[in-house]
Amino acid sequence: MKAIVIAIGDEILIGQVVDTNSTFISKELYSVGIETLKSISIQDDPTQIIYNLDQAFKEVDLIIFTGGLGPTNDDLTKLTLTEYFGDVLVLNTDVLEHIRSLFKKMNRKMVDMNKEQALLPKRSTILHNEFGTAAGMVFEKGNKIAISLPGVPFEMKNLVENHVIPFLQKKYNTLQLVHKTVLTYGLPESELAEIIYDWENSFPDDMKLAYLPSPGRVRLRISLKGEDRAELVSRIDEKVESLKDILGDLIFGYDDEQIEDVVAKLLTTEKLTISTAESFTGGKLASLLTSVPGSSKYFKGSIVSYATEAKIDILNIDESLIKEYTVVSEEVAILMADNARKLFKTDYAIATTGVAGPDRGEDGKDPGTAIIAISSKGKTIVKEFQFGQPREKMQGRAIAMAFDMLRKEIQ
Amino acid sequence: MKAIVIAIGDEILIGQVVDTNSTFISKELYSVGIETLKSISIQDDPTQIIYNLDQAFKEVDLIIFTGGLGPTNDDLTKLTLTEYFGDVLVLNTDVLEHIRSLFKKMNRKMVDMNKEQALLPKRSTILHNEFGTAAGMVFEKGNKIAISLPGVPFEMKNLVENHVIPFLQKKYNTLQLVHKTVLTYGLPESELAEIIYDWENSFPDDMKLAYLPSPGRVRLRISLKGEDRAELVSRIDEKVESLKDILGDLIFGYDDEQIEDVVAKLLTTEKLTISTAESFTGGKLASLLTSVPGSSKYFKGSIVSYATEAKIDILNIDESLIKEYTVVSEEVAILMADNARKLFKTDYAIATTGVAGPDRGEDGKDPGTAIIAISSKGKTIVKEFQFGQPREKMQGRAIAMAFDMLRKEIQ
Repeated sequence: MKAIVIAIGDEILIGQVVDTNSTFISKELYSVGIETLKSISIQDDPTQIIYNLDQAFKEVDLIIFTGGLGPTNDDLTKLTLTEYFGDVLVLNTDVLEHIRSLFKKMNRKMVDMNKEQALLPKRSTILHNEFGTAAGMVFEKGNKIAISLPGVPFEMKNLVENHVIPFLQKKYNTLQLVHKTVLTYGLPESELAEIIYDWENSFPDDMKLAYLPSPGRVRLRISLKGEDRAELVSRIDEKVESLKDILGDLIFGYDDEQIEDVVAKLLTTEKLTISTAESFTGGKLASLLTSVPGSSKYFKGSIVSYATEAKIDILNIDESLIKEYTVVSEEVAILMADNARKLFKTDYAIATTGVAGPDRGEDGKDPGTAIIAISSKGKTIVKEFQFGQPREKMQGRAIAMAFDMLRKEIQ
Repeated sequence: MKAIVIAIGDEILIGQVVDTNSTFISKELYSVGIETLKSISIQDDPTQIIYNLDQAFKEVDLIIFTGGLGPTNDDLTKLTLTEYFGDVLVLNTDVLEHIRSLFKKMNRKMVDMNKEQALLPKRSTILHNEFGTAAGMVFEKGNKIAISLPGVPFEMKNLVENHVIPFLQKKYNTLQLVHKTVLTYGLPESELAEIIYDWENSFPDDMKLAYLPSPGRVRLRISLKGEDRAELVSRIDEKVESLKDILGDLIFGYDDEQIEDVVAKLLTTEKLTISTAESFTGGKLASLLTSVPGSSKYFKGSIVSYATEAKIDILNIDESLIKEYTVVSEEVAILMADNARKLFKTDYAIATTGVAGPDRGEDGKDPGTAIIAISSKGKTIVKEFQFGQPREKMQGRAIAMAFDMLRKEIQ
């Protein structure tokens, strides 16, 4: 079974908004064995909607739309799809009641254009949008299905998880797609490819490998398609086991795990606590650590000492030491980590100091310079790096490296 | 002039990677008056590449590809495009030299598959990829043009800005597209639409308005197309001026500005400094404030006091006061803000305390509860909110509100 995902919105096509909705929908479809043949972003325009609907139905039987269902008059999707499927709009009193109750709960004034959102195609299946006023709609004609969903991410996500996926699972009987992604840190794509050359060449014909590189890390995705999910999973697991023997601790995690999830899991399992002292990462380590629900179990806090004064006043670093070595030095990084660990009474502390760029540091250090220290009881390690530019990339690489150093220290 | 952007990558279509490249390319095209008719993500598969190339050339004369140019054998784009345009691959010695020097600089071992990246189509224009090994390529046949770019974001961006855009500007003489986006905070889409109903109805035929809502804020985009850029800009500016009279300080900024950019500009202009004391926002305020280059001028630091102990030990809040009012209270928020401002010696300080969720707070408070305080010399304001769930949305709304409160305080 194949599908095409169509996101509607001029804002995507002028580059003002990144389309994350299609990614989410494709992932959900994939999980029940429906392959996204392609995803398309088109303008909020009836001619475009109809042309792309026609084209897409030549390639697949299932189309999922997202966007174009807002209350204001720049959204025309609902009317266009209703006419395309030869249907008419009628007032849906259940939906009207739901819209009323939403407005009451939010203590907002309901206006006429909100009421119009209860006008829905007569013969289509209406999907209940718990969090918003634009209902989901399933249009069917013969074996062709088009599903229209709102573009507001959390409304769309709830509809997909609770209504669209169960509907599709009931409707289609499909082949299972299974994949596992191995996350590696520290080797570039081409070097990794050389090391695993023999392993990759031993793949059976139906197994696929893809390299997904991003700065500092490469993800390896192994895929299989078939009827028996358990068998597919066990064949992939076997292949992953043999990869572990080759790559060892270059592997930091699996699938959608981020390095911060891996660290979070490790800290939770080992019942360890952590704090951070951040200069050029500006709170990003803390912010990633607290992005994981349940983080209060291991994360105690952070001191973002952006100004040198804060390093002296709050992190208690001797001013004369800063004068001697400068703020971007291994000596200062070590003290930042040690003192944060003591202030927050944690088992570990990470400290960062460096020059994010684009300008040079006050003491003339190059943009891209990063010093990372990890403090634990009786031992503090420190390393200097040059992560280059631009600023966001440099910060991203430093953050990934800091978490990777912590992971290796704990393990 | 219209273009279609095609991103190649299986990882996008199984929902593992969000395609931000197409957004960037569309934005750059738009800035020189080239309209992205649609953007498509397709599988890394020759049949799909050819099918979509054929289809896209029926609609437009210009196609921009991104992705599918890596050194490993799961990338087939270069070969497919070369054959499609009836060209052959030959060794490009300049590119080979460039790849060699890149590897030398990074102190990495060069392997055979890196050398293969210097095999390039003979008749196409080669675009120099300063930061990577995969060159950009311009294929031409009659009036049809396909440009192929790597998928690594910072390599692609550099190629677009320095090579693709200048090439297209030279090649085409196009109509100008001008738009301005007004950023509003505090009113939902439908209420805003009622307030500006008359203003919107007074639009001339060639002017377009779009509503772009996201939690807590709505962006209003006004667009015009024409020959004389200066005239278009002045016509839009006039319209925006009349909107200012209607919306007043509901407007927090313009175009791509984020609320943190607006705050950063305000702090810089007024020569003010800021610090934060963060509980449930976990360093995200600090991290956003430091995402702006030059932030060290106004941002001094933050104390992320995730654990109650950190509020007592580092932010010097009386333990008995916390026991009396609980950590999620206006009393504690006020002290967090006041004490952070004193510790960091700043003009302003923002404090947040609340329950991000999904679980209840230790003292039984509902998930979604947020208390925000802004401290300045001689005045501290504090407000309690209920931002609902899920966790990330709740944090996002709280952050936007905190910055908006700060903006209004300063203004």
